[in-house]
Amino acid sequence: MTKKKSGGRSKPLILVTNDDGVTAPGIRALTEEMQQLGDVVVVAPDSPQSGMGHAITIASPLRLEPVDLFRNVEAYQCSGTPVDCVKLAVDKILPRMPDLCVSGINHGTNSSINVIYSGTISAAMEAAIEGIPAIGFSLVDYSFQADLTLARRVSNLIARQVLRHGLPEHILLNVNIPDVSPAQFKGVRICRQAVARWEEEFAERTDPRGKKYYWLTGRFVNYDPGDDSDEWALKNGYASVVPVQYDLTAHHVIAYLSSNWNLDGLPKKARATQ
Amino acid sequence: MTKKKSGGRSKPLILVTNDDGVTAPGIRALTEEMQQLGDVVVVAPDSPQSGMGHAITIASPLRLEPVDLFRNVEAYQCSGTPVDCVKLAVDKILPRMPDLCVSGINHGTNSSINVIYSGTISAAMEAAIEGIPAIGFSLVDYSFQADLTLARRVSNLIARQVLRHGLPEHILLNVNIPDVSPAQFKGVRICRQAVARWEEEFAERTDPRGKKYYWLTGRFVNYDPGDDSDEWALKNGYASVVPVQYDLTAHHVIAYLSSNWNLDGLPKKARATQ
Repeated sequence: MTKKKSGGRSKPLILVTNDDGVTAPGIRALTEEMQQLGDVVVVAPDSPQSGMGHAITIASPLRLEPVDLFRNVEAYQCSGTPVDCVKLAVDKILPRMPDLCVSGINHGTNSSINVIYSGTISAAMEAAIEGIPAIGFSLVDYSFQADLTLARRVSNLIARQVLRHGLPEHILLNVNIPDVSPAQFKGVRICRQAVARWEEEFAERTDPRGKKYYWLTGRFVNYDPGDDSDEWALKNGYASVVPVQYDLTAHHVIAYLSSNWNLDGLPKKARATQ
Repeated sequence: MTKKKSGGRSKPLILVTNDDGVTAPGIRALTEEMQQLGDVVVVAPDSPQSGMGHAITIASPLRLEPVDLFRNVEAYQCSGTPVDCVKLAVDKILPRMPDLCVSGINHGTNSSINVIYSGTISAAMEAAIEGIPAIGFSLVDYSFQADLTLARRVSNLIARQVLRHGLPEHILLNVNIPDVSPAQFKGVRICRQAVARWEEEFAERTDPRGKKYYWLTGRFVNYDPGDDSDEWALKNGYASVVPVQYDLTAHHVIAYLSSNWNLDGLPKKARATQ
């Protein structure tokens, strides 16, 4: 469904979603901040969806229910993933394409490689794919009791920048906020995604019927010595802003493969073995 | 858990997974092809996981069961996502880091923007993150009854190339095979991800209790006029090979944001409102 874009005639229309679920403190804080900037509609999962990545719901139907959880804000809970929420909001709920989609404030970091696993970022990415300026916000503190003061202010200020300047085509922002007080906060840095990964170990247990099961556990390892990465920024009291793209092509590798691989032989070989 | 890499002393160790589930014809075909190239272990989802993207299972435990589905191949089904399968295989099943991870053969295309939603590609991406050369294979035909002859040959030949040459660090391959006969096949092209997206519409229905529910439907729209994209290749009888990276940073946008945005004002503002 193609929807009209705003002609700048009214207040900005802002879609708010998350992956911690519609009852999380982070989405309440983000919604309140966005109400200062425009007309807000919330469409968020009805249960926690952390780690859902860019999952979509294909094999089962989706439910959508209005909820009265936010003061003066039209809000819905959805049985699907964060990406489903954005798709449903655009197709079924919003009166026009929104001027901004914000996702979060996530309870826990989505810096470096976590961007890959994050439902928060995937929701923002889905919005960007649909042509909507989009931002994912995450706080480096997993607790639902975390102090959201600084995260609120950073979210408000970055959202203002995006509403004012827009974003380049096919780009969204991954914003992480350090776990420091506003007084300790050093500022905002534009960064690249750090080279890091999780070293997993599965905890093996035995159920009451004697069958094994496994819990994912892991240790985050940062291999990146650079001071221009998001990990560096967060460790040094800065909020990190990483411009993210969904063109996953490693363009610099195309020429390498084309010249080093023998691909001419493939079709003949495939035919020869017929 | 850190595992030893092969010193080249033995046959290559190849991990096979997919997102259509361990009983799909595509993974059987891929497993048989890989048995010609090395020692194979299969770890795949116990149910279809299409559209799971890079989802991981955090909030529930995982089950892992040996299955006797493949001739002379150690195989397991896992209750989790494709990414969970790779993580579990590396930590709990494989005797050492594999020399190759192949995912597929997916029943349905993972070209262009589909790379984002694909469990097949996410499994390969997870392997790449763990330092394992990895390839996702998909056939442009959603039917489980599809003719896999050409897909088998292309998979075999690309896997041989990767075993021989390796892959650049942090890179995996997204290989799509066109829906043509081996005789019509034009060859293999190294490509970039096409600029395309799904235009969604949700089908709205009413359940027997009078409550609405929604099914995701959509129309794929290719906006890309280039002849160097994966969509072009597939439409013209070629298999497409896109080198894929999981550094999602839009590096070219960092300088733009740094010079166009007023970020110096942010920390003072944040402090001022304390």
